[in-house]
Amino acid sequence: MSLLVVGTVALDSVETPFGKVEEALGGTAAFFSFAARHYTDVRIVAVVGEDFPGQHMDLFKSRQVDVEGLEVLPGKTFRWSGYYDFDLNTAHTLETQLNVLPLFHPKLPESYRGSEIVFLANIDPDLQREVLKQVKAPRLTVLDSMNFWISGKKDSLTRVMGMVDIVLLNEAEVRQYAGTYNLLAAARQILDLGPKALIIKKGEYGALMISEDGGIFIVPAYPLESVKDPTGAGDSFAGGFLGYLTSSGDFSPAGIRRAMVHGSVIASFTVEDFSVNRLLTISRRDIDARYEEFRQLTFFENSCRFASDCERIRIV
Amino acid sequence: MSLLVVGTVALDSVETPFGKVEEALGGTAAFFSFAARHYTDVRIVAVVGEDFPGQHMDLFKSRQVDVEGLEVLPGKTFRWSGYYDFDLNTAHTLETQLNVLPLFHPKLPESYRGSEIVFLANIDPDLQREVLKQVKAPRLTVLDSMNFWISGKKDSLTRVMGMVDIVLLNEAEVRQYAGTYNLLAAARQILDLGPKALIIKKGEYGALMISEDGGIFIVPAYPLESVKDPTGAGDSFAGGFLGYLTSSGDFSPAGIRRAMVHGSVIASFTVEDFSVNRLLTISRRDIDARYEEFRQLTFFENSCRFASDCERIRIV
Repeated sequence: MSLLVVGTVALDSVETPFGKVEEALGGTAAFFSFAARHYTDVRIVAVVGEDFPGQHMDLFKSRQVDVEGLEVLPGKTFRWSGYYDFDLNTAHTLETQLNVLPLFHPKLPESYRGSEIVFLANIDPDLQREVLKQVKAPRLTVLDSMNFWISGKKDSLTRVMGMVDIVLLNEAEVRQYAGTYNLLAAARQILDLGPKALIIKKGEYGALMISEDGGIFIVPAYPLESVKDPTGAGDSFAGGFLGYLTSSGDFSPAGIRRAMVHGSVIASFTVEDFSVNRLLTISRRDIDARYEEFRQLTFFENSCRFASDCERIRIV
Repeated sequence: MSLLVVGTVALDSVETPFGKVEEALGGTAAFFSFAARHYTDVRIVAVVGEDFPGQHMDLFKSRQVDVEGLEVLPGKTFRWSGYYDFDLNTAHTLETQLNVLPLFHPKLPESYRGSEIVFLANIDPDLQREVLKQVKAPRLTVLDSMNFWISGKKDSLTRVMGMVDIVLLNEAEVRQYAGTYNLLAAARQILDLGPKALIIKKGEYGALMISEDGGIFIVPAYPLESVKDPTGAGDSFAGGFLGYLTSSGDFSPAGIRRAMVHGSVIASFTVEDFSVNRLLTISRRDIDARYEEFRQLTFFENSCRFASDCERIRIV
């Protein structure tokens, strides 16, 4: 199967209590791609400016990321700068330079249109809808978003959420969208729009999938000795989740559960270093070893006593 | 095996966005007892004033809680009043009336001294040490504490933490004690004092056990549709954990993992209503049904591939 991501490629300046980077490779589609490429080839649609460093472009190519859809426009690349305190769950934005980003209208190369798994990373929901119009018959579509679109373009976001199979948000965004603190009640509001499942990201506490038939699967975050920079954890989670699904082709409830664990595994590596650095140095062997650790972290006598119990996690 | 708890019995006035109660039965030893009694008989050591309602005293007796060690002193019962906002993870104290509590010096009835499992609920660490001197040869000792003692009596707390098998704290307390944000580094500081394991409570995110040999077990909290009052969740967790261990007698790593899940199961019931109310209405059948749900919530292909992997969770 083939995997497509549409999102941002950015130059990030980030400071945390454990160091800082200036104009490092970032953006939702970049984190996603460098996570997912451990499992499968990735097609990327995004926009950068003419100042986008050639070495970054080469990095995508050297890691089997298809950059035919990575458009270069006159102007400067999208830049984000921010910092984190010791509470690494909260990003504080210092500056956002949109630069070429407002000019972005995703145009899928002909070769991308048959992509079977599509990740709509956090961008304007109008653009996410434009992408959905251009893909032919995707097997699975997944959407991420953020507080900015929930407050600024809620109607458009609501429309596109009703068109995808899985919505992926962090817990604050779920609560904000639904206007209620109770996460399960909020989840039901979103599932009522049409998606088959909602994945709620909880940062250092892991993630949760709720399917429309009421099935719930919880995966913890890996307990890390040293977190340097949480930027990109959510997009890496999506990359591990969908990269694994693309590679396995296993959409069974059990396969989805395994994919969720891979999402958490990959995210745990991302935050060990700044930018996409850690995703560049790990191997599939490292990923599989950490997956084994997740088995031990959560083992008691977990099982589905009746097959029907665990069948409830369904996305296709 | 026999189970002893030493802690507080209180009259709690609590308001949450979902209702309120006035002078309801509360206190660390009360929540613990009504949780643990679903698994085993419980012996309680605590103090109340002469105004303690006879109906509460009868409630303990009717639920197989041995109140020989529940002392009645001249004066009024310890009272706590507080409220929670929609962020139910944080209790805001309005008033603490210590009343007879400062007069408390735990005196174990002769029949209690052979107790094999001992829970030192959150009280003055000096008193916790007094209790340890009075028990003969406990198989397992577990201690809880709070920010008040970490800032006010750290030396005494440090001493008693070195004398017990398991320390139980919430994540803010672990960080406060160690003076570091990193939870694993903070855990190591506490384990270096001598306990065989540390349990870190994370409220709506569940709990984590770290053993001295580096084993980690993570149990989520049950995803609840309706949380009314989180008061007592931590003590109920301890009650489910130690109640199950007392009843099973299974101190193997696998048995400890199962006990942690029972802790989370019981805590999930407690928060569904005010005071100890929910703990009075559930049956062992309800508990076992929710335990089954935990199996499904966390199942992917969890296992210990090599027996030695999961052997690392050890407490005795």
